[in-house]
Amino acid sequence: MKRVFNFSAGPAMLPQSVLEQAQAEMLDWNGSGMSVMEMSHRGKEYMSIAAEAEADLREIMGIPANYKVLFLQGGASSQFAMIPQNLLRGKGTADYVDTGDWSAKAIKEAKRYGNVNVVATTKASNYTSVPAFDTWTCDANAAYLHYTPNETIRGVEFAWVPETGDVPLVADMSSTILSRPLDVSKFGLIYAGAQKNIGPAGLTIVIVRDDLIGETLPGTPTMFDYKIHSDNESMYNTPATYGWYLAGLVFKWIKQQGGLAGMATLNERKAQKLYTAIEASGGFYNSPVAADCRSWMNVPFTLANADLDKAFLSEAAQQGLTTLKGHRSVGGMRASIYNAMPEAGVDTLVSFMQDFAKKNG
Amino acid sequence: MKRVFNFSAGPAMLPQSVLEQAQAEMLDWNGSGMSVMEMSHRGKEYMSIAAEAEADLREIMGIPANYKVLFLQGGASSQFAMIPQNLLRGKGTADYVDTGDWSAKAIKEAKRYGNVNVVATTKASNYTSVPAFDTWTCDANAAYLHYTPNETIRGVEFAWVPETGDVPLVADMSSTILSRPLDVSKFGLIYAGAQKNIGPAGLTIVIVRDDLIGETLPGTPTMFDYKIHSDNESMYNTPATYGWYLAGLVFKWIKQQGGLAGMATLNERKAQKLYTAIEASGGFYNSPVAADCRSWMNVPFTLANADLDKAFLSEAAQQGLTTLKGHRSVGGMRASIYNAMPEAGVDTLVSFMQDFAKKNG
Repeated sequence: MKRVFNFSAGPAMLPQSVLEQAQAEMLDWNGSGMSVMEMSHRGKEYMSIAAEAEADLREIMGIPANYKVLFLQGGASSQFAMIPQNLLRGKGTADYVDTGDWSAKAIKEAKRYGNVNVVATTKASNYTSVPAFDTWTCDANAAYLHYTPNETIRGVEFAWVPETGDVPLVADMSSTILSRPLDVSKFGLIYAGAQKNIGPAGLTIVIVRDDLIGETLPGTPTMFDYKIHSDNESMYNTPATYGWYLAGLVFKWIKQQGGLAGMATLNERKAQKLYTAIEASGGFYNSPVAADCRSWMNVPFTLANADLDKAFLSEAAQQGLTTLKGHRSVGGMRASIYNAMPEAGVDTLVSFMQDFAKKNG
Repeated sequence: MKRVFNFSAGPAMLPQSVLEQAQAEMLDWNGSGMSVMEMSHRGKEYMSIAAEAEADLREIMGIPANYKVLFLQGGASSQFAMIPQNLLRGKGTADYVDTGDWSAKAIKEAKRYGNVNVVATTKASNYTSVPAFDTWTCDANAAYLHYTPNETIRGVEFAWVPETGDVPLVADMSSTILSRPLDVSKFGLIYAGAQKNIGPAGLTIVIVRDDLIGETLPGTPTMFDYKIHSDNESMYNTPATYGWYLAGLVFKWIKQQGGLAGMATLNERKAQKLYTAIEASGGFYNSPVAADCRSWMNVPFTLANADLDKAFLSEAAQQGLTTLKGHRSVGGMRASIYNAMPEAGVDTLVSFMQDFAKKNG
């Protein structure tokens, strides 16, 4: 069996022990004689798997009892509509922070449902920084404030949580959830596509304060109503059962790593190794992102000589370091180093980068 | 390893050879060093998996070139809204046939988006038959006609396809797709949740004639716009990659079984064995469904003495025959015998039913 260090931005690596357990249980989960994929979502076996996954997530993240945890489908892209459809609740305006491609997509979709007040944008400086909080033009009557704590494409991450007072804070955490401890009580709603730090693509987790749900815009599809899913324990219809099960295995793995505190220690160390290698390269490699908001999860970098990009990617792949090409809208390289990327993967990448620079510098 | 015959209505059994292949490839697909779950959906490995699955489905079903095949999320329940949102196209009314619980759900959701003309209903007779076509009060100007060729809960299946002329025919085939040959050109749109005859829950397949898409109702979420998904080859956002891959394995398996003609021969034989056992029981077992529309996929039946239900279920489970309890809204028993239920599973169930009747009759 071959395994590579896969730096994909998502879907991304999963912990090897999780894949091994899924492999072992593929035809017969726990003596049930069924694959988890084959189980009725309303049967006692699957209900126990689903409940345990939610309990573990609540424990890991310290989710307060007045927050619902929903296991949905449709990705963060569906949330871009669901959020205004559910959270505008008769208010005219929602605040949005524009820090990158994903923020911009959320804003574009929200504008179809209400007035969007863009409180700050870093678009003019090519989305390479986080706007200072004291520059934000917030609306005290906004239905909510939406931001993207980590921008997957450009590797810009907030090192702090905005204080929005009575305005519910809504966060697209697709590429940062579970990477470090978080005070969930500061948020009205957190959402995340699973395919980076949770499990396989096709599962979307929403954590929402229960007083915020129950009032949707006219025409909202029943399947886009948080209250429907909440009232039915995410089983209004058949959920993405196998993804939910795998997420549960990942949650157990996180507990084994020391929970979110353990993950944070590891993630910070991995990221620092990589940023240090970039900084120490004497300009051979460069980070386009401001130093105070460099992501722990997505590390974009460029080669000063872009003519070397192709050789870099090809030689890296030969060493089992794959999917390092930057997003098509940015170019250069991007190393996504989510929870499941082993530190050895980062070490191997750093060594390769040093060797490549020496050879081509 | 233990394996049971699982008669769940969905999620349901998958072919054992498909599970074995998925198991073997779990940590390393085809020497790539990655699980399929870990692959970027835009990488060459995954793109080849996705394209091959679509090509195989097109081949098996004989899908004409002017039909798009979409691999979506959200289940048939999301389609209940997507269909009117996309297919009303300025027309005031859509025709719906009401033959059971799933038809009724589709109707309820559609009413939120336009006028619904229920052309026929069998509700008064407890959804145990298919209404004769010459009784349908169709609207020649309807945007489309929606029906449910197989009602999963009550086991009522159309043995014929309605001829709706210029009115596009829309079918919820969640529990009958791929069970027998079909002339796709008779339909405007076919949709199916994967978790019965296609693959794992969380994947939804939509087959739609390309001239019908591109005009949505105001307020339709971007993710509910067929044209968006069609223009992006179902990769507008990250699809349910693992489910799509497994569906591809199931399509290969169907080809090995002789395609849909082979499946139909097997499915008809399996169903006939079971209905014959019910009919031959001298009233110990009863089918509530009219003889001309008994489903090949979902076989509900009752015991004349309902006091024996519990013993029936418990003794069946001891023989590895599981999930036979009828839907909570109907009671009694239901044996779902989709493509992947081996004939040996039906044979074992029939033997058990005969023994149980002899012992308790």
